[in-house]
Order: sequence, then structure tokens, then C-alpha cells
Amino acid sequence: MVETVSRQRCFEGMQGFYRHWSEATQCTMSFAVYEPPQALDGVKTPMLTYLAGLTCTPETFTIKAGAQRVAAKLGITLVMPDTSPRGCGLPGEDDAYDFGTGAGFYLDATQTPWSSHYNMATYITRDLQHVIAENFSVDTGRQGIFGHSMGGHGALTLHLRNPGLFRTVSAFAPVSAPMQVPWGEKAFSNYLGADRDVWRAYDATELVKQQPSGANILIDQGDDDQFLSRELRPEIFSKACQEAGQPAQTRMQPGYDHSYYFIQTFVEDHLNHHYRGLTG
Amino acid sequence: MVETVSRQRCFEGMQGFYRHWSEATQCTMSFAVYEPPQALDGVKTPMLTYLAGLTCTPETFTIKAGAQRVAAKLGITLVMPDTSPRGCGLPGEDDAYDFGTGAGFYLDATQTPWSSHYNMATYITRDLQHVIAENFSVDTGRQGIFGHSMGGHGALTLHLRNPGLFRTVSAFAPVSAPMQVPWGEKAFSNYLGADRDVWRAYDATELVKQQPSGANILIDQGDDDQFLSRELRPEIFSKACQEAGQPAQTRMQPGYDHSYYFIQTFVEDHLNHHYRGLTG
Repeated sequence: MVETVSRQRCFEGMQGFYRHWSEATQCTMSFAVYEPPQALDGVKTPMLTYLAGLTCTPETFTIKAGAQRVAAKLGITLVMPDTSPRGCGLPGEDDAYDFGTGAGFYLDATQTPWSSHYNMATYITRDLQHVIAENFSVDTGRQGIFGHSMGGHGALTLHLRNPGLFRTVSAFAPVSAPMQVPWGEKAFSNYLGADRDVWRAYDATELVKQQPSGANILIDQGDDDQFLSRELRPEIFSKACQEAGQPAQTRMQPGYDHSYYFIQTFVEDHLNHHYRGLTG
Repeated sequence: MVETVSRQRCFEGMQGFYRHWSEATQCTMSFAVYEPPQALDGVKTPMLTYLAGLTCTPETFTIKAGAQRVAAKLGITLVMPDTSPRGCGLPGEDDAYDFGTGAGFYLDATQTPWSSHYNMATYITRDLQHVIAENFSVDTGRQGIFGHSMGGHGALTLHLRNPGLFRTVSAFAPVSAPMQVPWGEKAFSNYLGADRDVWRAYDATELVKQQPSGANILIDQGDDDQFLSRELRPEIFSKACQEAGQPAQTRMQPGYDHSYYFIQTFVEDHLNHHYRGLTG
């Protein structure tokens, strides 16, 4: 059911890369898991899924974020899925950095040809769930989700759509209102079609207005981020949270940009945020 | 004198990439520097040079090791030079992963055509020193050196050859006796010629026999490292240290391999080792 690509010792736990067939995406998906030492000892640990941004792979956060140290200390299993199906042979899938391969946007496409493979929402909430529960020492009742940029938005939306599954949520520099920015408009119109009402089901700002979760949302955002004013727009989501009574804290971090040098600086705060929410 | 390629905020300090012309290598060299917040505030900080292994660049440790967090806490400036000259146009320089580009071995070549560019020992101890002292807030009297694999060996040899410059030293999975292993024999015979007596000046095991430094050497080595028995041979260096009265500790780490998942696990111990030696 799951193929092991590699397993390497890290902070007394195990960093692994794996592949499995997904019904949702009708292709073989890659993912990474960090098992803390507590999981290797058989403890059913809390589980935290990280959704990466445009162009990224399961390796990106795994290599660059320095999160294993904190996960080992807290006893959290980290799950790093891919950012899209790959190699499906769809026309144009590799033509742009912000659509198709590496840019699945964590939704279920409704438009052909994308709808036969680009179903990342179902992949993350069903197929990936099954393979993790069957092969790793996790307590599936204690799960959080976080991510960066496109993946930060994926974390916000998958939490708001599934608050009982992903009980805690945080984001680094998330796309916050995709219906109002170029990345979102391009992805949604191609994956979901021309009817903007359909888009609301995958827009974090629209979702929080319709169905606030009550969970405390932590967001870190660098004020020197090159995508801040054009693509990310955290102020739109903050305003919607306030109006909907959704607890949310957006921390503007002076001088930080959109990179993993920013993420590694604050990743410990995020793991602590989830740990408190899942074990308190 | 120095060209800034990029500077990015990280743990309240600054991660930068730079280029400068080197007289020693007769080409433009790339390097990375992490300035901790204390250095940005004008404190003359201790300085720690990291030498990477075969195929690596200034980005490798910078991205993968998670060292900035610790350097920010301790107030240490990290300097990550390249592993060789690049783009010199020498015949065969790009033909192998273990010789030429990415494989400078931190020595000064004596054989043509390599001797006109491949002078990494002089580069690290002279040209890089100058550019760092002129452009960063460091106390050049408090310097340590460490590295990985080929670079772990570079750290051992540059410390033993220059114990007053690099007062503290440590290594991850270093090549320990290059005259007795394939990587070393290939590099030394091409860079230094057929006379094996000449090689002794760049072999850590031979150097420690001739001129032990008295400094305490910290070495971490994974026991699941794929290069352990063929290329690294830490037992040869340990024995030479014992016989020469050189204080040295080699910690065999169960289950760890040769990767940066191993390095990130123990990098905090290494920075603490240098901090104690340079500020005690």
C-alpha cells in the first residue's frame, strides 16, 4: 500500500519519504513523514500536516524548515504531502509555476481535464489520512494543519471545511482571499470554472464568513514579503475573521520575506501553538 | 570589494550570499554569511567557518543545517565558503564529483593546471579572512572552524596548520586519513603530484602526529554512514590523536547516516563546543 523511498535518522526520530497510489488523484503521490522518537516507541502521537506553496514538493519543508527538532521535543508526527498530482499527462500541466504541477491549490477540480486528477482536497482529507493511519503511530483524533502561501491558504480552508478533523490551524504568509488576487483567480477559473459562486467553497475569507470554526488561528506574515500586497492580502482575511467572531492573530514580522529563512524563524512558535491546542 | 547577491532576515539576524574576487584562486568566489542580531547591533562577534563536503556549495549548510537559530542565540557569525573555484575552464574540472569543481579539498595545488586556481587553503586562511574582516562585525581573534566529510577534513587540517587562527575545531563525519582512502588518493595525486611525502602537509592524521594543537577536537560520526569504512576511517585519526596526546572525542551516533539530517541533529552541540572554546 505504501512504498518506502528512504528513511533517515534525525533527532532520534526518523525522516522518511514515501509513495502511494491515490484514488482521488488517480496517480502515485509522494509524501514525507517525520516520526518523532515517541512514535518509534509506539506512542500514538498528535499529527500535524504541512501544506507547501507553489513549486514546492514534500522535500521543501522537510529540508528547509528545521521543524524536526521541535517535533522530536514535543512528540508530534509531521506529514508533508506534495503540492499537486504529477506526471498525469494533462495538456499544459507543466506550462506555468502557478497552475497545474506544483500548484494544486488543495481543492477538488470540477473542470475537465483537471477534475480527473486535481482533487487535492479529497486527497489530503481521505487518501493521505488512510495511508498515515495505517502505517504510522498517530492519534488521528488529535490533528492540526498548517502551511505556507498557497499551502497556508490550503490549511485555512481545509480546517474551516473540516474543523473536526483538523482541530488546530496556523499559516505562514497565506494567500488569504484568493477570489480577489491573480493567483487565485487563475487557479479557480481553470479548476472550478467561470461561476464565482462555486469558488466560495474554497476561499478562506468566504468560508470564515459562512462557517467560523472557533479555533484560534495563528498567522505569521513578513512585512518585506514580495507577494504581500498583490497575492496574500492578510488584511482581508483578518477583517472577515473579526466580523465573523473567528479568533485569529496575524503577526506582522518586521523585515522578513516570503522564504524559508522566515519560516524557520517562527516554526517553533507554530508547533507550540498546535501542541497546546491538541494536548491541552 | 564584495558584491551582495541577497540578504534575508532570519532569527532577527541576516542571512546573506556574496561574491568577491580572490587572488588565491584567480576567480570570483561565492560565500554565505549569517550575521546574528548581536553583529547587526555592532558587537564584534566570534566567527565560525563551515567547510562543506563534495558537490556542495555555500547554500548547502545554509539551507539544511538549521544552524542560524543557534548562532542567533549564542551571537556567533557563521561563514560558509564554497567547496572549490568554479568555472575556471580547466580541462576535466567538471568530469567527476570527487575532483575539480565542488572538490577543492581545502589545499593549495602544486600541479598544473590546478595550481593556478585550486588554492583553497590560501583562499580560506587569507582572502576570505580579509573580506570577512572588512565587511562584517567579527572579532577575528576568536575564530573556530568546522565542516562535513571533505570539509570536516579541511577543518581538521586548517586548524592543525593554523591553530592560532582557528582556535576551536569540530567535524561531522570527516575524511580522517586521506592518504589511505580512495577520495584522498585521487585528489592528492592530481593536486599534489606523485610524491606522497608532500601529501603529509594536508593529511589530518599525519599533521596531528607532527604538530598536535592541544585544542579539544569534537567529532560526530553516524554508524550507519555509507562512507564510514571506505572513505572516512575515523579510527585511524583517533589512534593518531591518542598517540600524539591530542585531546579528541569521536562520538559514534547510532543509526545516523552521512546526510544533513544527521548534521542538523548535532549542529547545536558543535556551536556550543566552539562557543565555550572561544568565549571561556
